[in-house]
Amino acid sequence: MAEKWLIGVDLGGTTTKLAFLNFYGEIIHKWEIPTDNSNYGKNITINIAKAIDLKLEELDHSKENVAGIGMGAPGPVDLASGVVYNTVNLGWKDNYPLKDLLEVETSLPVIIDNDANCAALGEMWKGAGDGAKDLVCVTLGTGVGGGVIANGDIVQGTSGAAGEIGHIAAIPEGGAPCNCGKTGCLETIASATGIVRIALDKMKKGQDEGMLHELHRNYGFLSAKDVFDAARQEDDTAGKVIEEVSFHLGLVLANIANTLNPEKIVLGGGVSKAGSILLDPVKAQFARFAFPRVAVSTSIDIATLGNDAGVIGAAWLIKNK
Amino acid sequence: MAEKWLIGVDLGGTTTKLAFLNFYGEIIHKWEIPTDNSNYGKNITINIAKAIDLKLEELDHSKENVAGIGMGAPGPVDLASGVVYNTVNLGWKDNYPLKDLLEVETSLPVIIDNDANCAALGEMWKGAGDGAKDLVCVTLGTGVGGGVIANGDIVQGTSGAAGEIGHIAAIPEGGAPCNCGKTGCLETIASATGIVRIALDKMKKGQDEGMLHELHRNYGFLSAKDVFDAARQEDDTAGKVIEEVSFHLGLVLANIANTLNPEKIVLGGGVSKAGSILLDPVKAQFARFAFPRVAVSTSIDIATLGNDAGVIGAAWLIKNK
Repeated sequence: MAEKWLIGVDLGGTTTKLAFLNFYGEIIHKWEIPTDNSNYGKNITINIAKAIDLKLEELDHSKENVAGIGMGAPGPVDLASGVVYNTVNLGWKDNYPLKDLLEVETSLPVIIDNDANCAALGEMWKGAGDGAKDLVCVTLGTGVGGGVIANGDIVQGTSGAAGEIGHIAAIPEGGAPCNCGKTGCLETIASATGIVRIALDKMKKGQDEGMLHELHRNYGFLSAKDVFDAARQEDDTAGKVIEEVSFHLGLVLANIANTLNPEKIVLGGGVSKAGSILLDPVKAQFARFAFPRVAVSTSIDIATLGNDAGVIGAAWLIKNK
Repeated sequence: MAEKWLIGVDLGGTTTKLAFLNFYGEIIHKWEIPTDNSNYGKNITINIAKAIDLKLEELDHSKENVAGIGMGAPGPVDLASGVVYNTVNLGWKDNYPLKDLLEVETSLPVIIDNDANCAALGEMWKGAGDGAKDLVCVTLGTGVGGGVIANGDIVQGTSGAAGEIGHIAAIPEGGAPCNCGKTGCLETIASATGIVRIALDKMKKGQDEGMLHELHRNYGFLSAKDVFDAARQEDDTAGKVIEEVSFHLGLVLANIANTLNPEKIVLGGGVSKAGSILLDPVKAQFARFAFPRVAVSTSIDIATLGNDAGVIGAAWLIKNK
């Protein structure tokens, strides 16, 4: 009998990542297709079904030897029905029946969860989580996303909105406006966008010299990576930006840990690639604000799976069903 | 066959509450004994065993028709081993093997959990939780305790320190000192002690008149209840105290809900008896700081079981084992 495969799909706004995995979470083959958001999302499931069929044929693997498809979607999801409540950024219709449509197109069982939850499951299974049954994953990218695992299961919350860590109020009053309609959310501070905003803000108010100013003058543009690079060169403004980001991020993570005491908090996403220049001050602030017993038992680690976390965690949904 | 009973025990610093319940969570008989903390806690399990045996005899119920004993203990607990890590306030020795000792004394199966977790389970089963599988219980008493239920199970955390909601950093810098060694913890603000501290502080700084001043002059003493009573009489200082407490409590609860999106947050403990004079402004701040989808799906309610929550939740541990 041929080995059974799992299919993991990570549905992104512009690109959809797909992978075939075995039951040990080893990736057998992975590839990407563009996400076709036109026609209110109606083309998405057809394209995914076609891509899977073509690839199975190419690799000469029978569909009968596929256990099912797990998929991460960019929005709050009802796990049981596989309905995506809303995808404001993608322009699909609300309450999109993603599971039902993909099952019809593929004739395979499908389980859908939120993409940040899938990333958390991936890191739990094969990444920095090392199998930890209590894990919080925070993705610091263009925005800030989160996935909470307690007792080995994703916490969905009563309306699928658990893990909205990016929208924790970090600056209760006087913070920057957030896409969600509130102000001062963690996302306005600890995302790549937030870091650049704080840097530009500090540059306006501060002295007109230093590496950050030079980069900005030369390229008319600044990235979060520029800020970390400048901080490594001991640029004063960049150092202050990291101080501010670390204070808020460390405080928020400590307060999450005071509530959940997870074994690990795993930081993923592009910003986490900054490494110790960000991680060290975040850990220092965390230690300051965490309950003493929590401070010594909850660790903060950098994600290890990179872009594969989503497809691996999505495949876990099928393995674990 | 006689009906099987559950035994729920709520071990407090001065009083131990006991109850016999049926499998529907109905209390058949409840009573209290003093907690004997002398001899580093060694007398506790003997006294509980004696009290149970005497009462079973009195009610003519055979021990064979008891399913087991669930117990809430005042400290972080390892659920599997039933070891209480530490009980700083009670003077027992660290890593106290409460489950093993009580099983030896009673010849009944015993499950131990933290007391705040038991209160949360009680409210989930029979109280304000109405069976909600995702529930956060916050006890506002002399201190502030918490219990987190996700997917129907208590979240213990990696070292039993989940639910330390009282030690969430509410005022990161410049807050009042807390028993835990940090400053600005929620407990320094939203506990009965914290509310009185804030009131006395505002009285010192403010004008020397009003109902709170009068009460304080007459009795040389002020309670959290006095502050709520005065606020109901539209005392200015008391109003400002509630404003401050509600701001921080509402913010912390919103940030917990942004992480967990529970169906309900249940407020228990003596302070919660203040009712709408506290609940309404807390709800207003919660709505302000919660992620929009969370704000409309997570509700805040007052606990309904009072002092029985602990024994009912402890009994649940046995029913649900």
